[in-house]
Amino acid sequence: MAHIAVPEGIPGIRSLALYRPETAQHLYALAQVLLRDPSPLTPAERELIATHVSARNNCMFCMSSHAAAARELYADQQEIVDCVINQQDSPLLTAKMKALLTIAGKVQQNGKHVTDDDVRKAREHGATDRDIHDTVLIAAAFSMFNRYVDGLATLTPTDPREYEPMGKRLATQGYVPPQPA
Amino acid sequence: MAHIAVPEGIPGIRSLALYRPETAQHLYALAQVLLRDPSPLTPAERELIATHVSARNNCMFCMSSHAAAARELYADQQEIVDCVINQQDSPLLTAKMKALLTIAGKVQQNGKHVTDDDVRKAREHGATDRDIHDTVLIAAAFSMFNRYVDGLATLTPTDPREYEPMGKRLATQGYVPPQPA
Repeated sequence: MAHIAVPEGIPGIRSLALYRPETAQHLYALAQVLLRDPSPLTPAERELIATHVSARNNCMFCMSSHAAAARELYADQQEIVDCVINQQDSPLLTAKMKALLTIAGKVQQNGKHVTDDDVRKAREHGATDRDIHDTVLIAAAFSMFNRYVDGLATLTPTDPREYEPMGKRLATQGYVPPQPA
Repeated sequence: MAHIAVPEGIPGIRSLALYRPETAQHLYALAQVLLRDPSPLTPAERELIATHVSARNNCMFCMSSHAAAARELYADQQEIVDCVINQQDSPLLTAKMKALLTIAGKVQQNGKHVTDDDVRKAREHGATDRDIHDTVLIAAAFSMFNRYVDGLATLTPTDPREYEPMGKRLATQGYVPPQPA
């Protein structure tokens, strides 16, 4: 059971958005700009960074829902998502994405862990300032979302199939706050 | 030097807000709702939670600027801020605030660290659902802000006096994104 009285049966951050729409509007708007609006990183790549950080934080709700979105967006390259979750290498991952995922993993621990060398390696593989900025802010934002969802012990579905419609919704409609029933 | 080309001489998150106003507008709006809009916690108490989390993340820019804001808002009880930074007890801290700071410290580590017992203790000292919600989301949000500022190695003034005008501005004007010069 959640630590506070949120609407029953609504999973993860959606229950918190219904409890407190005043903060949710900005959280969802941030997610939309960060994960869907123009960026040198594709929406699939950005969902992969979100999945990577959520997996490292052991946040099952965020990991499962963003992995489902990433699978939708990667279409015929879905195995990339499982490789990232399981911290395995994949021939489908570009050298640039590997370098950016390393940076995201350091941000997940503490921002100070990112070194000049990490950034130099990402640039050697083609990363621009905007790639690096967006990677750091996505990793930082999921360090927030993961803590918000788990810190209030929100409902986390355990059946992987429950995340499939969430992934489809996030892939096609983006980040829209839930409306009260 | 910052990891990406942000405006020179502008400290911390303000340099990132000028680099990427599209995300900054939502980050600043979130901070304003979370730290200044109506809540059972005073703005001073909310700045104290932000300071506590930033100190634990060793984010000097966020710790120093929010400590300066908290000092302004606590007025004649400023020593409370130094006690929190130094993880010392203070007779000025209420039992409710101590319990909420414990929750914030757990969120700083990982949301899953918050236990039913932590929440029960906070309630015994008068905390409501909104107190607990706002504490968790402030701690989660500063887990993001700290990582964003440090992950991109933004300018961090080392002279404590440089934070005093920031504290006054945050205390009186709240969270307003910087405008390009």
